[in-house]
Formats: sequence, C-alpha cells, structure tokens
Amino acid sequence: MVNIDDALNMICKETKILGIENKDLLSSINRVLAEDIYSKDNLPPFNKSAMDGYAIKSNDTYNCSKENICELKIKGIIKAGDFLNGTLKNGEAYKIMTGAPVPKGADAVIEIEKVESKEDKLLIFEQVKENNNVIKFGEEIKIGDLAINKNNIIRPVEIGVLASLGYSSVKVYKAPTVALIVTGDELVDIKSNIKNGQIRNSNEYSLKALVTNLNAEALSLGIVSDDKEILKEKIKYALEKADIVITSGGASVGDYDFVKDTLKEIGADIKFSKIAIKPGKPVTFATFNEKLFFALPGNPSSLITSFENFVKPTIEKIMGKGNSNLEEFPVTLMDDFKGKPGRQKYVYVEIKRKDKDYYAYKVGSQCSNHLMTMSRANGIIIIPKEVGNAKAGEVFNGKFIFRK
Amino acid sequence: MVNIDDALNMICKETKILGIENKDLLSSINRVLAEDIYSKDNLPPFNKSAMDGYAIKSNDTYNCSKENICELKIKGIIKAGDFLNGTLKNGEAYKIMTGAPVPKGADAVIEIEKVESKEDKLLIFEQVKENNNVIKFGEEIKIGDLAINKNNIIRPVEIGVLASLGYSSVKVYKAPTVALIVTGDELVDIKSNIKNGQIRNSNEYSLKALVTNLNAEALSLGIVSDDKEILKEKIKYALEKADIVITSGGASVGDYDFVKDTLKEIGADIKFSKIAIKPGKPVTFATFNEKLFFALPGNPSSLITSFENFVKPTIEKIMGKGNSNLEEFPVTLMDDFKGKPGRQKYVYVEIKRKDKDYYAYKVGSQCSNHLMTMSRANGIIIIPKEVGNAKAGEVFNGKFIFRK
Repeated sequence: MVNIDDALNMICKETKILGIENKDLLSSINRVLAEDIYSKDNLPPFNKSAMDGYAIKSNDTYNCSKENICELKIKGIIKAGDFLNGTLKNGEAYKIMTGAPVPKGADAVIEIEKVESKEDKLLIFEQVKENNNVIKFGEEIKIGDLAINKNNIIRPVEIGVLASLGYSSVKVYKAPTVALIVTGDELVDIKSNIKNGQIRNSNEYSLKALVTNLNAEALSLGIVSDDKEILKEKIKYALEKADIVITSGGASVGDYDFVKDTLKEIGADIKFSKIAIKPGKPVTFATFNEKLFFALPGNPSSLITSFENFVKPTIEKIMGKGNSNLEEFPVTLMDDFKGKPGRQKYVYVEIKRKDKDYYAYKVGSQCSNHLMTMSRANGIIIIPKEVGNAKAGEVFNGKFIFRK
Repeated sequence: MVNIDDALNMICKETKILGIENKDLLSSINRVLAEDIYSKDNLPPFNKSAMDGYAIKSNDTYNCSKENICELKIKGIIKAGDFLNGTLKNGEAYKIMTGAPVPKGADAVIEIEKVESKEDKLLIFEQVKENNNVIKFGEEIKIGDLAINKNNIIRPVEIGVLASLGYSSVKVYKAPTVALIVTGDELVDIKSNIKNGQIRNSNEYSLKALVTNLNAEALSLGIVSDDKEILKEKIKYALEKADIVITSGGASVGDYDFVKDTLKEIGADIKFSKIAIKPGKPVTFATFNEKLFFALPGNPSSLITSFENFVKPTIEKIMGKGNSNLEEFPVTLMDDFKGKPGRQKYVYVEIKRKDKDYYAYKVGSQCSNHLMTMSRANGIIIIPKEVGNAKAGEVFNGKFIFRK
C-alpha cells in the first residue's frame, strides 16, 4: 500500500505531454497554448481616437477657457475605418469617431460632450493636453513582441487577443484519448429494469462525464463480463487505441477480479495496486509502453474519488495544465465523523462559509457505494491517516469539489 | 446613467426561464435539472456485500478467537450478478464477491484477508458483528424517495446517480440562443492583413467564446457596416431568431452609432443606456416582446467586462443557475492605480496570495482597448464610485476572473 503523495509522484513520473495539435481558434477554448504567440502587427496600427470628439492640435487650446473661447474650423469627419491622407494644420479640427485614426498633424481629441459646434465652427472652452484621448500607434503591442506565453490556458480574453493578432488557429497540447472498460457480471444497461443481483451500469456514465468535462476524448468500450479472456482482449484493444485506459471494478482481491492478472500476463509494468486512501484503496496503476493504465474500484463513489485524485491530475498534466483541484483551507467539523486510522479519508460534506471561516456538515453515509451522499456534498474534508474518529469542533483541511 | 446594482435589478426583472427541454443523460452535464428526480427502485436492490469475503451467520462466531478457531462449511460461491435462491444455515458459509447479493439467512460478511480456507473448510479467528460489510437493501435510497432536487446543477456525480436510477434522459432548463452582431466599418476578418484605419474583428470571437463557455448557443451574424438600414434589418432578424441579442460597438454618442436609434424605431423598450462602470459605460439594455437586447461597447476589454457583469448573470439565470461570478474578498494594492470618481472601476490585476491575504499587482494599462492587460490578469479589484486614485497599501474588494 502506497501513500497518496507517493502514488501521485509515481504517476507524475510516467505522465508526459502527448504532442501538439493545431486547433481552429474557437475550438481552442480552455485548452493550453503550446507555442509562444508573437505579434505580427503594431496594435493599434495607427494613432486611434478613444472617444467620439474632435481631432485637434493641442497647442491651439493653450489659452482656451470659458472666458476665452477658442474657435477652430471643422474640415470634415473621420469615421472608424476611414483614413485621411492630408495633414491637420493649426486652426483646424476634424470630427472623429471612436476607433478612427487620428489624422497626421493632430495630437489630441476633445470629447464631443465638451464642445459646441455651429456649421463648420468648433468652440472649445478649455485647454486640451497633448495625447488626450489618443491611443498611440503600437501602444498595446509592437511587431515581434510576445503577446501570450506558451503554457497559458486559452480563456475568452485570449481568444480575443489571438483574433486581434490575426491568429485563426493555434497550437495546443493534444488531449488524450481515454478508453473506459467497466467490468462486472452484475451490471445492466441503465435503461433496464433491475432483477435479482443486478445493478445499473452507472460507472460508465460517471467516467464519460468526468473525462469529457476535462476536454479529453472518452472511448467507451462498454461493460465487460467477468471473463478473463474477454477482458484481456478488451484491455489489449484499449491499450492500442487509447493513451490512457481506465477500468472500473475487478481491481480488488476476489477470485473474479482479473484486471491485475491480465496486466501481469501482457507484461504491463505495475507500479502500485493499493493506495492509503478511503474511499478508493484498490487502485492499480501500471504502464504499458507509453500508455498509462488505471484500474479503479467498482464502487461508484470510490471510483469518482480516485478519478478526481489520480486520473484528473494526469489528464491535466498531459494537456499542459496545472492541477485544477481546488485549494485546501481549514474547516471546522460541525458533526462527528467515524473512521479508522491507516488511510487518509476523504469525507463528503456540505461546507458552509460564515464570515472568514468554513464549517462542515454531514450529508449522509460515507459508505463507498453511496453516490447519493456525494451528490448532496459540495466539498470534502480530509482526515489524515493517523486520525480515526473525528469529532465536532475539530479542524481539518477541506476543499470544494466538482466546481466548474 | 444608472448604478451597477440598479442595472442588474432592471435586467433581472426582465429575465425569465425560457422553458424546459429533454436532454440525453450525457449531454445534460453542467446543465440545471428542471425536475425533481425520484427513485423508481430500492438501491441497493438487495443486501449487498461490500467486500470480497464469506457470507455467514454472525451468531456462528460469538465465541471465535485465535485460541478458539471456528470452522464453517463452504457451500459455494456467489459472484456479483449471481443470485442464490437457497437459505444459508448455521455452520455454513458462502464465498462472496464485492457487489454480490448476500444470501438469505446470512447477516454478515467477513473479509477474505481475515480467514483461512482449506477445501470446503473455512477457519474464522474472531467474532463478526451482525451486518458487518453488508450494505442493506434500500440503504442508499428507497422507491419514491427524492434523489436529486430540481434546480441542482448536473455534475459528473449526478450523472452517476441518474444512471444508477435508470434515467437515460432528464429535463433541464433551455439554453438561450444568443445572436451576435458586431458593428464597425473599421473591422476586417481576422485572417486579413490590416490596412490604414482597420483593425481585426476580435469581438466576434471573444463573444462566441464567452457565450459557448456558458453552454448557450451563439448565432453569429458577423460584421455589420455602419449603415443604418442594414443594421436595422440585422437587428430585426436577430430578434426574430434569438432569445438574447448582443451588439458590439455603435453604442456610444457618435454620428454613426446607430444601435439606439434603431431600437427606438422598431419600438424596443430601452431600460437604460449608460452604466456607472469603468470600463464599459455605454451599455444599452432593452426589451422587445420577450427578447432581451444588450448593446455593448466596441472596445474589446469594455466588451468583455460588460459581458461578464451583465450578460453572463442573465444567461445563467435563464439556464436556472445562480450567478457563478466568483466571490469577492479584500485585496491589498501593491501599486498605485489612477482613476477618477464617478464610476465603479474594474481594474485588471494579478492577484497573489500570501498566507491568508491577497495582494494586487499592476499588469499593464487599464485603457479600455487593452485586451493584452486583461490577458495578463487573473483577477480584478473593484474601486468604488466615490474613489478616484487608489494607492499602494490601500485595501479594496477583488475577485478572480475567467476561472473555469
């Protein structure tokens, strides 16, 4: 049995970027940039007006005030998208729209709300500073400047930056294909009525949702009955087609838990097969050539807990992301939670905040089959290995879960 | 000019659920349940073994210990998916796999690691309590019990719960279709080289990314030139096809800002057209029949700020979600930030945490064109209306932005 940190380190050591792919700009959202983005232009590509107003020479306004009203001659109008070839001279003004190029000769824009105009006469009642309302050529970025660093997540604002720089596609880290194999003769399709001894195949759905929520590709191979030869064929097929293979069930010590045997037979390198975590102890991690193999427990909530703690960081690392599991913080227990020493325990709770402090309330049985409890939870508290029963009033680290 | 809170209240008043749609289970991820989910089964549907071990009668073990080893007769094996019709009697044991039904007559399972077996003899070295490792019939949920409340977000764990209860599709709140109209004669396609006076159309991409990131449907109507009649036709078309219409640009006071005029002409009900926020003052909100209309500013970062603050909560409300904009917390400024009183200012910064405290660092110009600054930021600080310049050492509320 390995500790959680050792398990994570062993997995991390085997986890590598799969490569780089080109993505159409909008499909790259929430992926990670695999290239530095440089600007091929100066932005703005001209001195740009930040306001609707009048482009002027600021030195025409040095003595202007309400008492000493200045008068300029309006020569015309410059709309966004226009470009004036001439040069503005002293005594002249051009009406200018937000986003339009400030004409040569002009060095300031005075807002439309601050002036009066009569036919081609512009009246100014105050002094205007040089560069007022002018966004200078190249002020945002210059040709050759680094715009976005490699390894940044592409958020909506980066989509905007990339579009403004003329990138219609970008290089991102490849997402892994994750094969899913659900084992167990007791499993029936979710549309079936359950007969004696049967339960519905919820794990395949939980796993698909977990994988696709990370923007990875799920390749579901369905339910495999507890038959060693069939399982072996499925595992071999999965290792051929996918980058990561996940099995659920068949990972314990029972006579019909064939996953580990099969891994040995095909010559996979088994790194560990038990983790000191509750729920989710029977987790086997193995490698086969460059492929990663996780045999997860079949209990529905053990499955999700071990996915979140071990598979999710793996997929995120492959995709170039830091671990997005949320930050831990101290939480005060408001109920007693029974437990035994020996494994680190993840207890599903409702965490409420009051002022700056957080409190944890029981939401149901922590039995590892109870998806219902997990569904009522918004967080977990983490009870260390050494601790058995945890009592109301005690403080442990906790975190929120499943937040988007 | 309205205050931010008043603007939000006016928008909220006009924002209604659009209806309910049936979604295939896996496509319902991250949507909001529009029905209470009741259990149609008892789960587990039988007394289930939580371990690989032996099903026994606990009263056969009352006197067992290492000194007084008990011996039971192994009658057979029950795998997951099997169902035994007979009844276990005193002196008997069945080998049983995790997830398999505990046979009639048995009231406990002893773990495989704790026993020894020789042919059909089982040796037990300790007393076993009643119900040990037995997950009782209906312990997780009973027929007719409420499993998941209406209005809950469907996370991966809810996908698992729904699958286990036999739901292959569920009712969720409808997502709105959001029409996007980008105005401005200066805009060119992102693949174009930029000539004098032109900039690339980044706003359409930012908006598409923002809308689809919320699981809403984007209907992009492309760039509309600054021509009143064309704009009017596009707006009428958008109001017909979509639930929400967003324009970017054309919302200021210039001679070629036609959006507001058009809204008046078609008889839309304009609720406000300026908000005391920086960046993002020129926001018009209007209703037309049941449709919602947001005219957002054309400056790229004003556009994103006003989307995040006003459109995002609207889309989320329609989809049955609470506002997911993250919590505010106190942040200490590490740099000076210039500003004027009169509008609430959103300043894009890098927020770093040290111990329990948060600090804000400048990441670039706050000019409302500077997407680059926004792209370097991971958070904002919110400088109230009354405050002008904000100085290093002062504390304001802040929050993280664009987190998934």
